[in-house]
Amino acid sequence: MAFTVLVAPSGFKESLSADEAADCIARGVHRAFPGATILKAPMADGGEGFTKALVRATGGTLHSLTVTGPVNDPVAAHFGFLGGCSEPTAVIEMAAAAGLSLVPRDRRNPCLTTSYGVGELIRAALDRGARRILLGCGDSGINDGGAGMAEALGIRLLDKNGQPLPRGGAALADLASIDMSGRDPRLDAVRIDAAVNWHNLLLGERGVARVFGPQKGATPAQVEILADAMEVYAAAIRHTTGIEVGSAPGGGASGGLGAAILGLAGGKLHPRYDIVMQYLELDRFMATADLVITAEGSLDGQTPFGKVPAEVAQRAKGMGVPVIALAGTLGKGVQLNFEHGIDAFASILSRPCSLEDAISSAPKLLARAAEDAARMVMVGMSLRNRPHRAA
Amino acid sequence: MAFTVLVAPSGFKESLSADEAADCIARGVHRAFPGATILKAPMADGGEGFTKALVRATGGTLHSLTVTGPVNDPVAAHFGFLGGCSEPTAVIEMAAAAGLSLVPRDRRNPCLTTSYGVGELIRAALDRGARRILLGCGDSGINDGGAGMAEALGIRLLDKNGQPLPRGGAALADLASIDMSGRDPRLDAVRIDAAVNWHNLLLGERGVARVFGPQKGATPAQVEILADAMEVYAAAIRHTTGIEVGSAPGGGASGGLGAAILGLAGGKLHPRYDIVMQYLELDRFMATADLVITAEGSLDGQTPFGKVPAEVAQRAKGMGVPVIALAGTLGKGVQLNFEHGIDAFASILSRPCSLEDAISSAPKLLARAAEDAARMVMVGMSLRNRPHRAA
Repeated sequence: MAFTVLVAPSGFKESLSADEAADCIARGVHRAFPGATILKAPMADGGEGFTKALVRATGGTLHSLTVTGPVNDPVAAHFGFLGGCSEPTAVIEMAAAAGLSLVPRDRRNPCLTTSYGVGELIRAALDRGARRILLGCGDSGINDGGAGMAEALGIRLLDKNGQPLPRGGAALADLASIDMSGRDPRLDAVRIDAAVNWHNLLLGERGVARVFGPQKGATPAQVEILADAMEVYAAAIRHTTGIEVGSAPGGGASGGLGAAILGLAGGKLHPRYDIVMQYLELDRFMATADLVITAEGSLDGQTPFGKVPAEVAQRAKGMGVPVIALAGTLGKGVQLNFEHGIDAFASILSRPCSLEDAISSAPKLLARAAEDAARMVMVGMSLRNRPHRAA
Repeated sequence: MAFTVLVAPSGFKESLSADEAADCIARGVHRAFPGATILKAPMADGGEGFTKALVRATGGTLHSLTVTGPVNDPVAAHFGFLGGCSEPTAVIEMAAAAGLSLVPRDRRNPCLTTSYGVGELIRAALDRGARRILLGCGDSGINDGGAGMAEALGIRLLDKNGQPLPRGGAALADLASIDMSGRDPRLDAVRIDAAVNWHNLLLGERGVARVFGPQKGATPAQVEILADAMEVYAAAIRHTTGIEVGSAPGGGASGGLGAAILGLAGGKLHPRYDIVMQYLELDRFMATADLVITAEGSLDGQTPFGKVPAEVAQRAKGMGVPVIALAGTLGKGVQLNFEHGIDAFASILSRPCSLEDAISSAPKLLARAAEDAARMVMVGMSLRNRPHRAA
């Protein structure tokens, strides 16, 4: 039986989609192991690419529409319907309507950006008869706790004078009451399953504003404003629906969108790979693999907390298949990954260079690194011939 | 029998000596294979470190003295005597008296720099009774064809008016005759064995001025001046002693010092590792090794032409031991090394960074890379348990 390598990378932010990364790795592995069978399972998380990956994996359909973007300008967005489902199942990625890449760099102020367009995508899916909605969370450019989405679904967020709040996370500091009377009634009949990073919380020291605010453009002062506003928001949701979103796993996903899905839209939150893996062929491929190669832009101490390489490694470990991870940057705490199923890792870099150079050369570097890693593995395999000498 | 790893790196220019590099690699390998036996054989070539490496390996003695440096300022230099030799054997590295690191950056003009101090080191060794001299070539900062060394040994290089030439390679364009009458008579009774890069020629397109002049600070115009001067010089040597140094393997070693050793001093040139390996314990260690890890600052298409990793790999190949090479930079043509006994390689870099950062972090990066490579090998070894699945 041929030696089989499963290639299951994430995308590399700003340089390679997961598809492209898988192709590069496969190319490198093929150069080292020309006789090997190479299976490709590019990994989607809940962020950019979630909809297309699931639609493609199931033979579904993709639909385009214009919605309100994160800075209130119209943006071209899309959602899909899965193929082969007994009940009409829509698939939506929040990043298509409120992703960070839709926020111009000079307007990255998460006090103001809104998830309103996500609510519009949900309405469009309901208009087309969705009975179930898979909602991918990730790569968001907002920190409004999903308040914009709630507004688009007919829920009114009011100040102490009963006036609707302006959009954006900072305004939630003035939230006095939530009026559910205009909430889209179809929400009661649809099942919303959101794919979230289970480790993202809405409140506290590890809450969404503090952890993700800065990378969305928040100043330290804005981070504190947002953190306080999320406290007010969570209290109002608890008062209105009895649901505790502040400490719910995934409640801080996508700028707190998780909180609104759980607390206001009647949806459920799931660890994102529990959703994604149902539709990708990873587990089936894994069962036949001798070796797994995964990859992500950065591998570090955060990787075990819900990043693609860790998720892939966890599944591989369950089947006893060794896992190699490739990354552009091996960051602080990378050794922690040895305890989470990654057996070896390597950087894709081959010389001193700037981040910009690394990004523009990523396809070549990744292929090269995959070949190099495979050749290291071959060295280990060649030691088989001298077992009396190996420890 | 314990799994045995032989660590045989070169130094990393401007950051790690071969000793230090070996320690770093050993540290990393130990983290991955705590039970393995690790043998260290830091590799000297003919350049910086040659004398100390051979003196230490043989339990010899080291002697300090002041000689004329490459820019005619006095420099603190050293030479040694090997331990355990039946005839008194001195060991000299030319870089101690005329190395590039002794030429201040603002005075890097190989038209003017001189090898005079190398002749002084030879005289000092003769003064102490040397009957044999091992002369290491490499890391030179000169391009005078060894004319300075010859002068220090009593040989007079004269212009058409019978006047001695000024020092430096460019002056050799005016060389009309060589007067051997004052040549140190002790040269006839001593055996000089120079360790040179066998691929370095004095003349032609691949001659010393064209290949190495630029890295010693020569402008394109100066390269041509020096190339022409070396032609004149080789013709004069041929005329004087009948020895053809222009195309002799190693004649271009150390700015053409090889030519003067061969053509004027009565010495012999040897591929540098033929000398070095006699005194280091590489071959003995290699016989017990399961795996060899070598390293150099850069690994590229030039490596097979006499660089440490290729020399180590060649010896390992002869004994059927797999070889891994680590390098700061994987350069153009690096794949060529697969045809020369290196089974796998990896860069030591772990993230985008400048050359300066890479140099200052080299110890940590090298240890980390050695561990990572060893873990890749372990992945391959772990596949032994599933041979029915491996190709």
